[in-house]
Amino acid sequence: MINYNPKEWFTFIFRLHKADTVRKLTPMFIALAAYAALVAYLELHVFKLSDNSHLKNISLMHGLLGFVISLLLVFRTNTAYDRWWEGRRQWGTLVNISRSLAIKLQAILPEGHPARHYFRTMIPNFAFSLKQHLRNQYHPGELELDTPHEFTQEKHVPNQVAAQMMRKVQELYKEGLLNGDHLIIINEEMRSFTDVCGACERIKNSPIPFSYSVFLKKFIFFYVMTLPLGYVFSVGYIIVPMIVFIFYVLASLELIAEEIEDPFGTDANDLPTDTICNNIRLHVQQVL
Amino acid sequence: MINYNPKEWFTFIFRLHKADTVRKLTPMFIALAAYAALVAYLELHVFKLSDNSHLKNISLMHGLLGFVISLLLVFRTNTAYDRWWEGRRQWGTLVNISRSLAIKLQAILPEGHPARHYFRTMIPNFAFSLKQHLRNQYHPGELELDTPHEFTQEKHVPNQVAAQMMRKVQELYKEGLLNGDHLIIINEEMRSFTDVCGACERIKNSPIPFSYSVFLKKFIFFYVMTLPLGYVFSVGYIIVPMIVFIFYVLASLELIAEEIEDPFGTDANDLPTDTICNNIRLHVQQVL
Amino acid sequence: MINYNPKEWFTFIFRLHKADTVRKLTPMFIALAAYAALVAYLELHVFKLSDNSHLKNISLMHGLLGFVISLLLVFRTNTAYDRWWEGRRQWGTLVNISRSLAIKLQAILPEGHPARHYFRTMIPNFAFSLKQHLRNQYHPGELELDTPHEFTQEKHVPNQVAAQMMRKVQELYKEGLLNGDHLIIINEEMRSFTDVCGACERIKNSPIPFSYSVFLKKFIFFYVMTLPLGYVFSVGYIIVPMIVFIFYVLASLELIAEEIEDPFGTDANDLPTDTICNNIRLHVQQVL
Amino acid sequence: MINYNPKEWFTFIFRLHKADTVRKLTPMFIALAAYAALVAYLELHVFKLSDNSHLKNISLMHGLLGFVISLLLVFRTNTAYDRWWEGRRQWGTLVNISRSLAIKLQAILPEGHPARHYFRTMIPNFAFSLKQHLRNQYHPGELELDTPHEFTQEKHVPNQVAAQMMRKVQELYKEGLLNGDHLIIINEEMRSFTDVCGACERIKNSPIPFSYSVFLKKFIFFYVMTLPLGYVFSVGYIIVPMIVFIFYVLASLELIAEEIEDPFGTDANDLPTDTICNNIRLHVQQVL
Amino acid sequence: MINYNPKEWFTFIFRLHKADTVRKLTPMFIALAAYAALVAYLELHVFKLSDNSHLKNISLMHGLLGFVISLLLVFRTNTAYDRWWEGRRQWGTLVNISRSLAIKLQAILPEGHPARHYFRTMIPNFAFSLKQHLRNQYHPGELELDTPHEFTQEKHVPNQVAAQMMRKVQELYKEGLLNGDHLIIINEEMRSFTDVCGACERIKNSPIPFSYSVFLKKFIFFYVMTLPLGYVFSVGYIIVPMIVFIFYVLASLELIAEEIEDPFGTDANDLPTDTICNNIRLHVQQVL
Repeated sequence: MINYNPKEWFTFIFRLHKADTVRKLTPMFIALAAYAALVAYLELHVFKLSDNSHLKNISLMHGLLGFVISLLLVFRTNTAYDRWWEGRRQWGTLVNISRSLAIKLQAILPEGHPARHYFRTMIPNFAFSLKQHLRNQYHPGELELDTPHEFTQEKHVPNQVAAQMMRKVQELYKEGLLNGDHLIIINEEMRSFTDVCGACERIKNSPIPFSYSVFLKKFIFFYVMTLPLGYVFSVGYIIVPMIVFIFYVLASLELIAEEIEDPFGTDANDLPTDTICNNIRLHVQQVL
Repeated sequence: MINYNPKEWFTFIFRLHKADTVRKLTPMFIALAAYAALVAYLELHVFKLSDNSHLKNISLMHGLLGFVISLLLVFRTNTAYDRWWEGRRQWGTLVNISRSLAIKLQAILPEGHPARHYFRTMIPNFAFSLKQHLRNQYHPGELELDTPHEFTQEKHVPNQVAAQMMRKVQELYKEGLLNGDHLIIINEEMRSFTDVCGACERIKNSPIPFSYSVFLKKFIFFYVMTLPLGYVFSVGYIIVPMIVFIFYVLASLELIAEEIEDPFGTDANDLPTDTICNNIRLHVQQVL
Repeated sequence: MINYNPKEWFTFIFRLHKADTVRKLTPMFIALAAYAALVAYLELHVFKLSDNSHLKNISLMHGLLGFVISLLLVFRTNTAYDRWWEGRRQWGTLVNISRSLAIKLQAILPEGHPARHYFRTMIPNFAFSLKQHLRNQYHPGELELDTPHEFTQEKHVPNQVAAQMMRKVQELYKEGLLNGDHLIIINEEMRSFTDVCGACERIKNSPIPFSYSVFLKKFIFFYVMTLPLGYVFSVGYIIVPMIVFIFYVLASLELIAEEIEDPFGTDANDLPTDTICNNIRLHVQQVL
Repeated sequence: MINYNPKEWFTFIFRLHKADTVRKLTPMFIALAAYAALVAYLELHVFKLSDNSHLKNISLMHGLLGFVISLLLVFRTNTAYDRWWEGRRQWGTLVNISRSLAIKLQAILPEGHPARHYFRTMIPNFAFSLKQHLRNQYHPGELELDTPHEFTQEKHVPNQVAAQMMRKVQELYKEGLLNGDHLIIINEEMRSFTDVCGACERIKNSPIPFSYSVFLKKFIFFYVMTLPLGYVFSVGYIIVPMIVFIFYVLASLELIAEEIEDPFGTDANDLPTDTICNNIRLHVQQVL
Repeated sequence: MINYNPKEWFTFIFRLHKADTVRKLTPMFIALAAYAALVAYLELHVFKLSDNSHLKNISLMHGLLGFVISLLLVFRTNTAYDRWWEGRRQWGTLVNISRSLAIKLQAILPEGHPARHYFRTMIPNFAFSLKQHLRNQYHPGELELDTPHEFTQEKHVPNQVAAQMMRKVQELYKEGLLNGDHLIIINEEMRSFTDVCGACERIKNSPIPFSYSVFLKKFIFFYVMTLPLGYVFSVGYIIVPMIVFIFYVLASLELIAEEIEDPFGTDANDLPTDTICNNIRLHVQQVL
């Protein structure tokens, strides 16, 4: 995620950022401009269609369907944003339960007990392993492990971390360091590790239904391709920049939606999971 | 569910997928094209209505109602998508509680105890039986059962599985292998099996209210059928492709909404419940 | 609720269903048609207003306000649908807690104990009494009671059922059949009976705020009544079917919203509470 | 809240209700009508601007901004309605927890014990004190108190009631009438009293952000004031009723939103908190 | 937050408030006015483009994209408002748990016990430290501390406060003043302190995705800059006030969204966290 000051308006407008959709769409812009120029040339100079041509009024259709395409793009934007924001909330929950578990354990476990050290390293390890898991990676180096082969990449790593912590809790319970009341009050936090992991996997693995994705792309494509047919009569060669701008607006919304829909990668708009992981480690170590 | 890379734009636009609404609507396209051509022929060549005919201005109505139809289709899209997404979240919850219960039980139950084996098979069995139940099927072969007739198809199968697991938990509690604190900390997971099942049944059995469904279809039908009456004067025979495209857009939205509204089947857009079931079995077996 | 196959498009379009708004609005259609014909006759033949009359341009206002009326109707549709869907979710919760309580009790209570019989009848009784309560009825015959006068219609019946079940639970607790851990794990289910009841009463007793209801009706009325004034110049007597269709669309949305807003009755669009009650009885009897 | 039958359409349209925005806006209607007539007189008769005047086309701007103003008013309507509905849900929760606590206590406390009488009066007292608190009032007469000065108006009354109930619960716990399991199962209800109170205070004290309120009013004002400048050329003196109707629609939405945003007063659209309080007392007395 | 009476319409319209976007946008207004005047001068007097110029019809594009820009601004407004309102709800939760914990502790802890004094000061201290933390400040003077250096600014202060309270609770538990049942019933409140803190940090640190922010600014900029090109033919020099008004509307929505998106500062629209903190201290002191 790019950290930016949302109030610096005008630097935004003229700089081309890495994540800017202008960059990605440039080849399309050129193709579309050529296509529009060709249509204008054919209609105005080759076929010399008069202003009364029926083709001119095809733009009535573009007016009618303008609502539908706008509303669909907003639907697309909303669903993509909701996933992004739900991903953010899940990582916020991970921060909360990591801190909360650390705060509870520091109060329950005696100062200097090895179990404190254990949770001081393992709670952040869960966050790091989840981050890697969502990127289909496993880097044991980022985790603080006693032995580098404590977890195997073949199995689901965050589950292994959660299962090991759960076993540790049961051990402490059997040793009497945690009693039944303690077990009950840390249950919510212990459960939530798995919940956060499952929710993030769900967001990652469920893009918008296939049919909507196909339909929206087909719709944008035919809408933009038929635009010059009627508008050429009204605007002449001005159709060239006009169609590029209209396509820029419509396609950008679809492109941004596609990018933020899976927010756990390393794209410019993705969630700052690296920073969040480091903060979890920092805060857990401060507390525990 | 079709797994697709949402970024491959242009392969989408020209290929006809199985789930593509173009396929299903083709007969309608032909009928509508014939109807529009007939209207154009009658108005322009038989009755030779002049450009000043009052019929031309009927398109004012289509402008006015264009908002309403667009907004209604978006309402339809939103409610259908919400069901699809809620179905996805319920199956996500099933993944979470299956894992979470497995993680808790592996920590509580001693290594090698037969109850571990029991839950290793029964937790995934619940997921498989729910998947089948939502498709009105029962295939005991997919479940891992000690005896093939453990559950009877006549009764609600997922309820039988949940009830048997609950009895097992109470047995272990009476044997002292689980104590009261354990009972309380696994209660949430045990309850959620039934909740997920009920929520999925609710989504499956409650399509959008009948009146909206009827109203929307009537509205689209009369809207599209009256369109050529006025537009023929402006666009001549171009009305034929134009009306097909407009109908394609409006009807596709309704069709896709109908398909994703019940997301538990085996349609192209349905949820990947088979994959989820297999993942639950895999992860539970890794952990327990 | 009418069970329908949402995919049978075209039977919908031409059949008149019981719930169809066309039926209810027919008198209004006739009145409006007469009114529009009168306006057309007066403007075109009596006053012979010319095409340049200022009255013609009153339709500018209808364009401007077209957005507002569309968006308001969608707001109305959304809020009504949300109540319907929340009602559905509450009854889904009732199904879940009924099953879940039955599943827990069959595991805890010994086979053949009279308390099992008690809950086997009382859990479904709650659902039936709630269904009747939401329709302002009380039919003890539908409940399975030991004595027909166990509950009195004068007091809130679902509360009496819930209170009696709670007393039974406390009795079993005092007898030692349920211990403290059991009490805690069935607490959530016991509470939820009252929550579902309260939520359904809330939906039933809170239609959309009075001012919105009045405002929307006034708005639709004046919008439709002033429509012919300007449109007559453009469309002549075609205004008659046109205004009927526009009114059909706008008024249908308001009518459907009014109907589904209170989803607990026996209207065509109401929730299938009878079926749900029977399913609860069936499933509880299968389990317990 | 006015109890009304939402299906009696046409009585609504012509009667002027107390809450009707027509009433409140009448002075504005007159002022606007005079203003529009003056503009029409000046443009048509004093300056005799021709139909080709550039001023005529200022209405292009009104078309462009028509979307924005409509969407903003719907945003305003949605947020105001959400507060109203959240307020309603909070009071629904208060009903639920009052009943649920009464149902639990009647099962736990022995028949005839003075604590039953205590909660029979104090649970409804909380509802009444909250209702008064949200109207910045305190009428001990409405509460059932042993001594009229049990609570002091200087301190937060609902907090005092909740605190006293909590002390009573702890007393009963120390006396052994409630044991630890009971304490845990009534904990949720005891907590929720404070939650409902806090949520209602939040809704009451947080109107929509100041900037939106100012912006929307400025926008409506300038939009309506500039409307006649261009439209006079098209509609002549018909601008007078037209502008009144447009202003009626736009301003009504803002006015209704302002009224329902704080739903705890005694306005026509406010929540029926008096009735709810009485129902809580009735139902608690029936049960306990 | 400015406390205002939302019903005083017309004072709003003409006064310039500190938070008013008119103030911030004035330099832009002047620049845009000059730009529009220049365009009008060039097109009308220098190049003397005729009314049939193709440039005139560029405004067709502005009509088409008018929907998209309106819907995007509403999307922006909704997401910003949702953050503001979620921030408000989190602080409402903080009020609730502070009161609820105080109410529980006053019932459990004996009158005059030093732990009562401890929580009477520390519960409000959490609120004050969170308020400061969200503004990147630390003023120990605002907190009621035994020693000014009890907490260090280097570490996360709200976490330190929460951790110290949790240690106090465990101490009281070991001393037997709180028993296991007590521990369980105050667990929810203890956890929620950390949850509220995490949620507020999440809102503060996650503005809307970068790409949307850039895209929306670029879109508004090009939309407004190209507006005069076509409209000059229709409205002449009236384009100057017209473009200022259109820009005022579009840019205000973006500006307000930017301001309320981070609601924890001291801007005019920010949440009244100072008042809330003082209320928490007042109410906790009244109760405990």
